[in-house]
Amino acid sequence: MGELKLSKPYLLQAADLTTEDVKLIFDKSDYFLEHYKRGEKFDDLKGVTVAMVFFEPSTRTKLSFDIAAKRLSADTISFQSATSSLTKGESLIDTLHTIEAMGVQMYVVRHGKSGVPQFLQANTSGVILNAGDGKHAHPTQALLDSYTLYRHFGAVKGLKVCIIGDIIHSRVARSDIALLKTLGAEVTLCAPGTLLPRNRNIWDCPIIESLDDAVEWADVMLVLRLQRERMESGILPSITEFSKYYGVKYEHFTRKPELVLMHPGPVNFGVELDYRLSTYPNCLIQTQVTHGVFIRMALLSLLGRDL
Amino acid sequence: MGELKLSKPYLLQAADLTTEDVKLIFDKSDYFLEHYKRGEKFDDLKGVTVAMVFFEPSTRTKLSFDIAAKRLSADTISFQSATSSLTKGESLIDTLHTIEAMGVQMYVVRHGKSGVPQFLQANTSGVILNAGDGKHAHPTQALLDSYTLYRHFGAVKGLKVCIIGDIIHSRVARSDIALLKTLGAEVTLCAPGTLLPRNRNIWDCPIIESLDDAVEWADVMLVLRLQRERMESGILPSITEFSKYYGVKYEHFTRKPELVLMHPGPVNFGVELDYRLSTYPNCLIQTQVTHGVFIRMALLSLLGRDL
Amino acid sequence: MGELKLSKPYLLQAADLTTEDVKLIFDKSDYFLEHYKRGEKFDDLKGVTVAMVFFEPSTRTKLSFDIAAKRLSADTISFQSATSSLTKGESLIDTLHTIEAMGVQMYVVRHGKSGVPQFLQANTSGVILNAGDGKHAHPTQALLDSYTLYRHFGAVKGLKVCIIGDIIHSRVARSDIALLKTLGAEVTLCAPGTLLPRNRNIWDCPIIESLDDAVEWADVMLVLRLQRERMESGILPSITEFSKYYGVKYEHFTRKPELVLMHPGPVNFGVELDYRLSTYPNCLIQTQVTHGVFIRMALLSLLGRDL
Repeated sequence: MGELKLSKPYLLQAADLTTEDVKLIFDKSDYFLEHYKRGEKFDDLKGVTVAMVFFEPSTRTKLSFDIAAKRLSADTISFQSATSSLTKGESLIDTLHTIEAMGVQMYVVRHGKSGVPQFLQANTSGVILNAGDGKHAHPTQALLDSYTLYRHFGAVKGLKVCIIGDIIHSRVARSDIALLKTLGAEVTLCAPGTLLPRNRNIWDCPIIESLDDAVEWADVMLVLRLQRERMESGILPSITEFSKYYGVKYEHFTRKPELVLMHPGPVNFGVELDYRLSTYPNCLIQTQVTHGVFIRMALLSLLGRDL
Repeated sequence: MGELKLSKPYLLQAADLTTEDVKLIFDKSDYFLEHYKRGEKFDDLKGVTVAMVFFEPSTRTKLSFDIAAKRLSADTISFQSATSSLTKGESLIDTLHTIEAMGVQMYVVRHGKSGVPQFLQANTSGVILNAGDGKHAHPTQALLDSYTLYRHFGAVKGLKVCIIGDIIHSRVARSDIALLKTLGAEVTLCAPGTLLPRNRNIWDCPIIESLDDAVEWADVMLVLRLQRERMESGILPSITEFSKYYGVKYEHFTRKPELVLMHPGPVNFGVELDYRLSTYPNCLIQTQVTHGVFIRMALLSLLGRDL
Repeated sequence: MGELKLSKPYLLQAADLTTEDVKLIFDKSDYFLEHYKRGEKFDDLKGVTVAMVFFEPSTRTKLSFDIAAKRLSADTISFQSATSSLTKGESLIDTLHTIEAMGVQMYVVRHGKSGVPQFLQANTSGVILNAGDGKHAHPTQALLDSYTLYRHFGAVKGLKVCIIGDIIHSRVARSDIALLKTLGAEVTLCAPGTLLPRNRNIWDCPIIESLDDAVEWADVMLVLRLQRERMESGILPSITEFSKYYGVKYEHFTRKPELVLMHPGPVNFGVELDYRLSTYPNCLIQTQVTHGVFIRMALLSLLGRDL
């Protein structure tokens, strides 16, 4: 496995990944998943310093990357800048160059503005891993979602995945659509009109009008988090109404027990998802979180091996 | 020592500990104390991830657990939630399940509400260590206090310990009383009526009315921190008055030099304790802090060995 | 190299360093720089706990020390106190004694008040490394500055260094002047009168009136950061005026290409320095940052070896 490499020496968006890249990442994740279970330790990043550069608050993604890096014996440092110091583009690059000059080689970056990881990658000889930028991309989430499907079904190709809920504001949706299509899944969308892109054909995914139709069609329901902030902006009339028509209910799954349920978390139970579904056998939400750590170990190891 | 185990696979309150448990913990603490002095390194928790989950601010206890975990080669992550996200009981459990899904096996938990560690333990297959919950319990403080007495006197059984000051609001007092009684010490209380439980017999400890009587009776004065907030709530007429009648003075110790002084810290010098006592030979306050790290190493090692 | 020691078992100010100390530190930095490049790992501080005690916000210096300590396999803990708890002198010492009782042996300290590291060193058996105190001293910055000159020119002795800008408020200036003189450099100052000490002879450095004269005289231009706060205090009429007369321009360097440019960072580009200079070949600003980590590794290793 030593000579295999990702086609790009960084991870900015799911659209950059080839099927060969994904195979390599999934194989490496399988490796870590199996060997970690047996209590093995990993030295892949011994002597490598990984900076967690989060300009947006994050709990899950940051912890997941942090645990992944530590399991590979990396040193991790955390750099959490106030947005205020970012008014000038130069200062962001200057900060990057300063951290880089200290010998940091890998950067896990989250930023509220789309495109920041690309901008940083263009200005460093280090490795950027995009941990979410604005509404643009969240490629490690897409990878862990597809990996979870791969482990559950044995393959992603040909799966019918319906993405449900707050699609227009979601970097997760964008990245999932891109990767699922690369891997040969069929993707549809189900959401109220105000939570869909204005140009409904922009991502080339059919729209399914009702949850009932989605349940009938899909192998997988991938439910998104409804950002509470959306309410205040007047995009939705009320949470109750959203929940009535687009909240996924327990009955949807008793009707079709083989249907798989996924959600990137954290879940607004009672809004986009019935709480009783959290213990439903084919609810893979916890599995997604578990796989997230192995996917990130795989990426850090593959991208960090030549540093 | 390999086959010995604590009677419960977690630590929620001092009352759960048997004398055999305590012997095991003290022996393990002795082991770490001796071997650490000689510069040895410990791999007990290599590959184990310990989460520091503090919902209340803490400096001493958090640092102590953090240092203990690192000395055992654990990976530590810190999760400090704002209380705001805890309004719904589900979200706390959901957060726990998310961290757990990432492969975290041990949780050091502090929370302002009594009972939260129990609630979490009931909902996880991981190991909870209570680092202080509301007014309920602070079992590692009780263990380090008793361990300090054990190291100083050779045994806890038969010792006369007077607990002084803000007893009613103190989780330290509750835990110390429980553990000291388990270990066969005699415990009395000395405090103004408003800082004692309304039902004075609730803990089955005699009340000593004056500090002078306490000094005469006791082998050990265990002084508690007076929470400044108590003043504002009108429970005490004034700090000056409290300090006059229940503040421990230098003269109390010159009168009886073998008397041992303890305090869980941080001390309000000039309120519950005369500053000159900080350098008094039988003042064991710094020793308590030192022992705290070894007690926590022992607990983490004993509870984490099968993970 | 095993038996060589610094003349003092701590680092409080550049003025304490002898030329032998500096040679030892530079040799050790050379060692780490060369061996780190080859991918070697270092165990110098394995089992040693280093506390980062920052009472002032810091990004660069704190990250640099943190990376240095981790590269030496130290455990690091971070202790960031609010200034509020420091109103009483005792509480600062009490906090130090508490951390010390937990087994922490080295303290990297930054504080807004001059003299705090000295005060702490006088009250501990641990090792204090001053990471900047008030307007007093920033000795690791001085060491990395001189080390950068040493690596660039082969020696510091006889070099002509002009320090430019906000000298009166700068602990960097104080420490650089002291160390450069110890090492035999000639030091001059160039700044508007309000940014120079009132007694111009206090540091025994000639004043150069104009930047043009400074360029002609110097081998090295060491430009300081202009604290924006200075503007508000009325010390300078305007940033534009400061920048016009004391801002270093690209033309200054095209005129004399061998001239070396240094700055402790972070740079206010457009104020004290022309942005185009950041890519100027003899601009050593990034090199200073890189060397900072190796200097700190050397200091931690030399001061921590007997712990």
